Amino acid sequence: MTSPFSNSPRPGTTVPSEEVLARLAAVVGPAYAITNKEQQAPHLSEWRERYVGATPMVLRPADTAQVAAILKIANETGTAIVPQGGNTGLVGAQIPFESGNEVVVCLGRLNKIRTVDPSTNTMTVEAGVILADAQAAAEEAGRLFPLSLGAEGSCQIGGNLSTNAGGTAVLAYGNARDLTLGLEVALADGRVWDGLRGLRKDNTGYDLKQLFIGAEGTLGIITAAVLKLFPKPRAVLTAFVGLQDPRAAVRLLHAAAAKAGGTLTSFELMQRIALDFVLKHLAGSRDPLNAVYPWYVLIEVAAFDEEAAVRPRFEALLAEALAEGIVGDAAIAASTAQAAGMWRLRAAMSEVQKHEGGSIKHDVSVPVGSVPEFLERADRRVAELIPEARVVAFGHLGDGNIHYNVSQPLGSDRQAFLARWEEVNAEVHGVVAALGGSISAEHGIGRMKRDLLPTVKSAVEMEMMGRIKAAFDPNGILNPNKLLRQDTH
Amino acid sequence: MTSPFSNSPRPGTTVPSEEVLARLAAVVGPAYAITNKEQQAPHLSEWRERYVGATPMVLRPADTAQVAAILKIANETGTAIVPQGGNTGLVGAQIPFESGNEVVVCLGRLNKIRTVDPSTNTMTVEAGVILADAQAAAEEAGRLFPLSLGAEGSCQIGGNLSTNAGGTAVLAYGNARDLTLGLEVALADGRVWDGLRGLRKDNTGYDLKQLFIGAEGTLGIITAAVLKLFPKPRAVLTAFVGLQDPRAAVRLLHAAAAKAGGTLTSFELMQRIALDFVLKHLAGSRDPLNAVYPWYVLIEVAAFDEEAAVRPRFEALLAEALAEGIVGDAAIAASTAQAAGMWRLRAAMSEVQKHEGGSIKHDVSVPVGSVPEFLERADRRVAELIPEARVVAFGHLGDGNIHYNVSQPLGSDRQAFLARWEEVNAEVHGVVAALGGSISAEHGIGRMKRDLLPTVKSAVEMEMMGRIKAAFDPNGILNPNKLLRQDTH
Repeated sequence: MTSPFSNSPRPGTTVPSEEVLARLAAVVGPAYAITNKEQQAPHLSEWRERYVGATPMVLRPADTAQVAAILKIANETGTAIVPQGGNTGLVGAQIPFESGNEVVVCLGRLNKIRTVDPSTNTMTVEAGVILADAQAAAEEAGRLFPLSLGAEGSCQIGGNLSTNAGGTAVLAYGNARDLTLGLEVALADGRVWDGLRGLRKDNTGYDLKQLFIGAEGTLGIITAAVLKLFPKPRAVLTAFVGLQDPRAAVRLLHAAAAKAGGTLTSFELMQRIALDFVLKHLAGSRDPLNAVYPWYVLIEVAAFDEEAAVRPRFEALLAEALAEGIVGDAAIAASTAQAAGMWRLRAAMSEVQKHEGGSIKHDVSVPVGSVPEFLERADRRVAELIPEARVVAFGHLGDGNIHYNVSQPLGSDRQAFLARWEEVNAEVHGVVAALGGSISAEHGIGRMKRDLLPTVKSAVEMEMMGRIKAAFDPNGILNPNKLLRQDTH
Repeated sequence: MTSPFSNSPRPGTTVPSEEVLARLAAVVGPAYAITNKEQQAPHLSEWRERYVGATPMVLRPADTAQVAAILKIANETGTAIVPQGGNTGLVGAQIPFESGNEVVVCLGRLNKIRTVDPSTNTMTVEAGVILADAQAAAEEAGRLFPLSLGAEGSCQIGGNLSTNAGGTAVLAYGNARDLTLGLEVALADGRVWDGLRGLRKDNTGYDLKQLFIGAEGTLGIITAAVLKLFPKPRAVLTAFVGLQDPRAAVRLLHAAAAKAGGTLTSFELMQRIALDFVLKHLAGSRDPLNAVYPWYVLIEVAAFDEEAAVRPRFEALLAEALAEGIVGDAAIAASTAQAAGMWRLRAAMSEVQKHEGGSIKHDVSVPVGSVPEFLERADRRVAELIPEARVVAFGHLGDGNIHYNVSQPLGSDRQAFLARWEEVNAEVHGVVAALGGSISAEHGIGRMKRDLLPTVKSAVEMEMMGRIKAAFDPNGILNPNKLLRQDTH
């Protein structure tokens, strides 16, 4: 007999004819069907210019019905659709291929906050709502929407959900997936699935929303979501801690979790060199500690009591860790401004690397307890490969998620270094695989890691994914050849 | 063109021949292939004897490989398989149909706790591990596995995950789904998907584990799982509160959440009559409060600080609610024994109803803020239908999950009352639907609510489920006609 997982999706996409383009334009109206190359440009490349695509048309639908109408035409005519949110993705999922055959659908006009319901701690927002606006709407209702990441001023909820965004509050509140109660999705055939339920418990069949979260627009287009809100902490305590190595950081993590439980919101690990780069290149930055340490941790705890009651306990935690030799030194932020200053150091770490030449990047995760071993083994492999390369590691230790970046040796040739990207990737990902880790902790697969996926997943897992793709997008029109390879593009 | 969701699964199951049964028995060995009717009996009915099935054979495989081998034979021969854990399910999913054509596969011998890793806060357990044993293994490692429910002494992890179990700690820790990081699953064709990853972040394609969680064994058989562990609270504070109505309870919930954040672990609502039934029928029970109130709330807060530091704040919360008139009276447990006594009242509420005659039950959820309106509207509908019926409502207000039970009028005929089960269901579920709620908050669909499902889900949602079923179990051998109707059984 044949395997139930033998079919892979067959993309049926073609070059859209003038007639098809006219039908698509008629759905949104001429003002929102962009064919002018200059106006298209912002939608065809991302900020690092790693991917630059082409398209006959960028569509800017006004509402769910228009998104659905676009898909109905696309599905009937085999037209490939690339959904796009705030265009802040890091793996190229939101950029069309260079062929110029794919139509881009921007969700930005679906920007209504439909309801905010503090009595149920939910809000219903459309896909094009900017994350910062969603946060502000929650704040206005006296609640917290905890999803927070560097791009929050321009990324959109639809993209956040389609990539299962992580960020800096995952430790306490989870990923975007964990913050989602319900979805509205335009399906490949142009029908709309209304799964906008604001329920904490609902065991009525398969949990369909889970499929669309993190699917990078390959199974449907998310048009709206019911998101979880939380009570707002009364105060936030922040500390910048110097320590000897990642093993000490893991010990501190568990000591902090034991004292703070679910109120431990962030636990960020940083290597000294990452701080050095920031201090060198970020104007006005200063080292929060007096001495130099090989590693640092930024801890944040949410306080639901008065700060005066919580601060002594936070101090006691750090004092104990100091006494036990886990920690070398620690500075607790005395004000919101000081806390912001500490976070600025952490936030600048991605950005400043460019001033130090080429950087080969990895967004990996391993089981939290394996982070020290990962760093030791990956460092050895990189040193064997490129002895003078400078490893710049930092990330969300509480989630086991390390941004393991490798800067070029001082004075070396940038292009020659970057030419070894895949070679370095292979070594680092080899260590990740050996430790049961992930080659994409929070950024996704998109185009960048699509061909790596079959190298880290079992054949059965790839087949299961293919079956799902075939079940939800049989004509292969939804972001084809992103995440999963189809036959051609 | 045709809809991508037009096919429903075609079950190909047949009466297993003697030869097929012999092949299946050979996989597990004769001692674990039970054909004796007496030995089969405990596997063919559940504790309320609502469903009593028949089977040619109960198989008790020893490990994942044997489960997979069973499925390979079943898939090749069109033999229907009913997976069974601790047989504590409440909707009949784990019981074979009366036809006697289905083979039962019990997971109880897959009872190894493979690893407990406090450094990563995870444990890997097999499907047949009893929930209480999993809790104890976590405890031994100085951690908490928070899933907790009435049947924890006999239910098994595989069943907990297959039904996405809820219980009393959902408010702080989530459902079984939220406690799962990875799965190992025997697929319909006898292959094994090893998704046993212990990662907090992993954005590498579709999150396949989500499909099997809550699927009631219709898409694969879960054989092992990586579960999340948590730091253990240092102390637990418990209070029993009397108040006037559910609206006051919702206000208290938000006041408590604002003060306790994620450390608010339980918030249970109970109607006076439910307490009356317990006080009348549970030996040794006593009312924790001096006066009678129409409604009660049981609050539990986990303390990560010393109890002495937390207790005054808990007292202040209740004192404020008292001063604001939200609460009529409150008793804080002074000892673990007193707290256990309060929980015993809540826990007995399901059990004691049987002493008051027939009870028509509902396991529903609505958005948390809509619980008061649900109760008001449902009460009116029931009163119109059966004026003297006694509504006994209680449940997890923090999750919007109410066990809305209706006891027969005093002195009325039990059978005549129970004959109106579906009529009462229809009224109550009508209110649930109007409020965007769920007809099965935590118990699942199984056999009991299978034919209700299409009445509360859209056609597109039913088709999406059918597509998934067809993709993962094309021959319809996995728990056929549970959750989703197939053609025949």
